[in-house]
Amino acid sequence: MLRLSAAGGIAMSSDNTVEFAGKCHLDGRASDPRSLGWMQGFPPPPEKQVAFEGESWLQFPQLRWSLSHMRELVPTVAIHRGQGRSKPLGVASTADESIIDALEFTDTTGRILRFSDALTDTYTDGIIVLHRGRVVYERYFGALEAHLPHACFSVTKSYAGTLTAILVHERVLDPLETIPHYLPEIRGTAWEDATLRQVMDMETGLDYSENEIDDRSSSSIYMRACRTRPRPADYDGPRTSSDFLLTVRKEGEHGRAFAYKSVNTQLLAWITARATGRAFAQLLHEKLWAPLGCEEDGYMVVDPAGMPSASGGLYTSLRDLARFGELMRRGGEWDGRQVIPDAVVDDIRRGGDRRKFAIGSYAESLPGYSYRSQWWHSHNELDAVEARGIHGQRLYIAPKAEMVVARFASHPLAASAFNDPITMPQMLALGRALRG
Amino acid sequence: MLRLSAAGGIAMSSDNTVEFAGKCHLDGRASDPRSLGWMQGFPPPPEKQVAFEGESWLQFPQLRWSLSHMRELVPTVAIHRGQGRSKPLGVASTADESIIDALEFTDTTGRILRFSDALTDTYTDGIIVLHRGRVVYERYFGALEAHLPHACFSVTKSYAGTLTAILVHERVLDPLETIPHYLPEIRGTAWEDATLRQVMDMETGLDYSENEIDDRSSSSIYMRACRTRPRPADYDGPRTSSDFLLTVRKEGEHGRAFAYKSVNTQLLAWITARATGRAFAQLLHEKLWAPLGCEEDGYMVVDPAGMPSASGGLYTSLRDLARFGELMRRGGEWDGRQVIPDAVVDDIRRGGDRRKFAIGSYAESLPGYSYRSQWWHSHNELDAVEARGIHGQRLYIAPKAEMVVARFASHPLAASAFNDPITMPQMLALGRALRG
Repeated sequence: MLRLSAAGGIAMSSDNTVEFAGKCHLDGRASDPRSLGWMQGFPPPPEKQVAFEGESWLQFPQLRWSLSHMRELVPTVAIHRGQGRSKPLGVASTADESIIDALEFTDTTGRILRFSDALTDTYTDGIIVLHRGRVVYERYFGALEAHLPHACFSVTKSYAGTLTAILVHERVLDPLETIPHYLPEIRGTAWEDATLRQVMDMETGLDYSENEIDDRSSSSIYMRACRTRPRPADYDGPRTSSDFLLTVRKEGEHGRAFAYKSVNTQLLAWITARATGRAFAQLLHEKLWAPLGCEEDGYMVVDPAGMPSASGGLYTSLRDLARFGELMRRGGEWDGRQVIPDAVVDDIRRGGDRRKFAIGSYAESLPGYSYRSQWWHSHNELDAVEARGIHGQRLYIAPKAEMVVARFASHPLAASAFNDPITMPQMLALGRALRG
Repeated sequence: MLRLSAAGGIAMSSDNTVEFAGKCHLDGRASDPRSLGWMQGFPPPPEKQVAFEGESWLQFPQLRWSLSHMRELVPTVAIHRGQGRSKPLGVASTADESIIDALEFTDTTGRILRFSDALTDTYTDGIIVLHRGRVVYERYFGALEAHLPHACFSVTKSYAGTLTAILVHERVLDPLETIPHYLPEIRGTAWEDATLRQVMDMETGLDYSENEIDDRSSSSIYMRACRTRPRPADYDGPRTSSDFLLTVRKEGEHGRAFAYKSVNTQLLAWITARATGRAFAQLLHEKLWAPLGCEEDGYMVVDPAGMPSASGGLYTSLRDLARFGELMRRGGEWDGRQVIPDAVVDDIRRGGDRRKFAIGSYAESLPGYSYRSQWWHSHNELDAVEARGIHGQRLYIAPKAEMVVARFASHPLAASAFNDPITMPQMLALGRALRG
């Protein structure tokens, strides 16, 4: 279906397949999980069952089903929405979804795409667009429904970074303290002489590789410890995420360059829980879900000690993710109440150190960006701040367009590099159109 | 603490322990899961962690924590409460909880107990009492909170039976049909010549023992198939609950006597899903959770094929359980709408065949009772109908007292026989008091 040169990492193939990085996958339409029948039938035929063990859940196209149904495969802890009544997001009276559907833009490979076709090409499961705080566009595809929580993957990190920044503002945490001040047991690990701020901004020197493909990589070991990836029957690795963090050793210096390593976020969640005496999911409830009047309970994947995976284990409904984005766009105010201190939001929306980013591993794929408190800052014409997760998860906050976009996807490839060539110009074009 | 003769199966022991069936357990106060610290701390110390594997979750006193936190240990499917707004249960203007607390009654061993002390002695996690549809008493203990779903165990069966009865009323199902009419693959099993009505009323002759203690019993094999009990590393038993049902063979006759066997309920859930094309959890949402305006999502433990355990795998908040009871008391009407056909409620509230019950295995422990569509009927002076689950789960509907009681508990022993000596007279005394 796609008619692209290989330059953008995407190549044309037969009529309902696409080639990414040399491998063919069903395209966005042909991989629809309902028509493929994953977990349908009572019981579903064995070849249509999706499991955590053996990792069929993470294989494509099965993950088009599993990212909307993870709790049916693994233990999870609820983030309670609160007992107050949820106020639905307002819908713009002028909303005309067909205008957005027809919006054309040029992707980075030079292809002209309609907005609606781009959703298919990025394997979108759901997308919602707010303009000036009101819904102007909302679509669900495949296995996702408005009330179902979907995988956030590393979008989770921006929640963790924001919580930590709130606690810093409240002087519960001191960004200049080194980690053992909060977690004495961290002495002897990579973080012994790292400051909280360095961990928040991913500026630590760690002997840790973010390679998710290699089964023996530190990141794979970490995920088995978090139980976000299955453990073999003869597993004898770290029993919990905390046990794994205690094994991480230093490599290089702290504070020198941006170095994206998921374990930093898991450490933040551990620190916030220890310092407040409250579970991370409870903090999310108190600080965000309840005051935002979220519509649905969210949830997180937990390890055997009940510690949630704060680097990638959050699941939320699309609207509730959009609420979080809109809260950041509004400077932390919601329904007349300052839910996040404006100083915290301002700091994140100013972005991080672009020089340190430019010597980090994302310098080429995200030129001009910076990273602050677990948020990506584009420093583009819309001043867009992003929360980014593998397989296409995205929260895109564009203050200069008064726009927030929340998108869930189940792209066959994990790396954002495979959908950024479409997503980046798509968001920019939409922002420009809404800015008018 | 308890000062009882051994006659009632309960014997006195030291100051904070109780002896049941020859084994000592911490009493209701000393086993409080918060003071014992289960799963507290970040991370909790290893000796305070509770796990599904190895079954520490089901050991006492750990189960005082786990029955309120099961989703953190196993995969579960949500029962969505619906997007309509929940209307809280009304509170009686005359409610005076201290009067109920002080209510005295005599248990079956002759001991005079205060209502509030009886809650401790039955290891109550939560109890709510409705009178004329309004809350007159509501208490939470231990790990339970108002919004947390708690284990229903076999109270789940009464939900399944009611759903089935609704579908019979809607003529989606015919009670006189034999099971292969709905599930052709059931041919060759015990149910080949059983009618739907016999399955609904537990009047099937099955080579199946409800013995949960013996690891090799059919019931233990069934629970491992349902994944409500852990599977050993070298597990090679039935992969799903459905696979297990296909192994059940006939023993004796169908339709002769009441014979309580959990697999009958699992079969009902399978039939309702197959006949309607809707998952059991989805049916609960459509037929009960949404129309009742439930306050919280419920959930169910699922097997690897996504089939929920309908014999004992439901978790719901206490208030939402009470809603179901109140719906039955009101003859199926809720907020001006007939949510369950009155004929269905009437049939259940008339009860089942007392003669068949009297020759069944519960004849001695529940004299005078009958069983209909997965509900227990006391035929007592309050015309009380009960949903009953192990470890003390109970929904007690007393039409003649215009009373509904929902109670969750985590009694050290599974069998109701260990708390019935207190619970039975307690419910009766409360009903008499409210009837006035």
